[in-house]
Amino acid sequence: MDRIPILKMGDALLITIQVDMHDRLALALEEDLTAKIAATKAKGVLIDISSLEIVDSFIGRMLDNIAAVSRMLDADTVVVGMRPAVAITLVELGLSLTGVKTALNVERGMLMIQNRLRGLGDFSGRRS
Amino acid sequence: MDRIPILKMGDALLITIQVDMHDRLALALEEDLTAKIAATKAKGVLIDISSLEIVDSFIGRMLDNIAAVSRMLDADTVVVGMRPAVAITLVELGLSLTGVKTALNVERGMLMIQNRLRGLGDFSGRRS
Repeated sequence: MDRIPILKMGDALLITIQVDMHDRLALALEEDLTAKIAATKAKGVLIDISSLEIVDSFIGRMLDNIAAVSRMLDADTVVVGMRPAVAITLVELGLSLTGVKTALNVERGMLMIQNRLRGLGDFSGRRS
Repeated sequence: MDRIPILKMGDALLITIQVDMHDRLALALEEDLTAKIAATKAKGVLIDISSLEIVDSFIGRMLDNIAAVSRMLDADTVVVGMRPAVAITLVELGLSLTGVKTALNVERGMLMIQNRLRGLGDFSGRRS
């Protein structure tokens, strides 16, 4: 199992991070994801990190990278399911994931992507 | 990371199996899932096994167990993303997962669950 599965759900792709990430796996994920965005014309990427107890600078950089690459392919990235303790640690470490949108859970993340597609508001879900 | 995340998507719960399963993890997954079905009143369970290259009798039994327990709680289980090679091996091994419904991917699995909820047909998606 050297690949993280990428699931298509409507206009979005869903990735659940469950295993310890390392360089090769992160690179493979980026490659697979860009190929899948191109193949499925997905407009959003949801990354669930609810099973991660620790998000270090490596994971933080990977999330930033994925968001940047997806943006180039016109897909928005939303990180969902971050544990409260992880959020506290990230801020304390000075890693505030500025390039990445977040939502409490998959459903809210999906709503953010759909709202933007429907032009119902800006990407945060607020009406403009 | 000793827990497999269970994501709520509308009326269904989504589980992506990515790691090697062992006894304790399978038991924990069953416990978490039943608690989550009760808490969210979910009507369906989607289990994605697209990253599994091998499904042995242990995994087969786990899938059967999950389907049986979910059925008790009035939720249907659909296994999605099975690789063709896995399907061949399962049949050759005599493990045909009779208690479990399958669909090609998450979207079709979700459709099966929604169709049944809307009374549009039987569980297989055919109109009755």
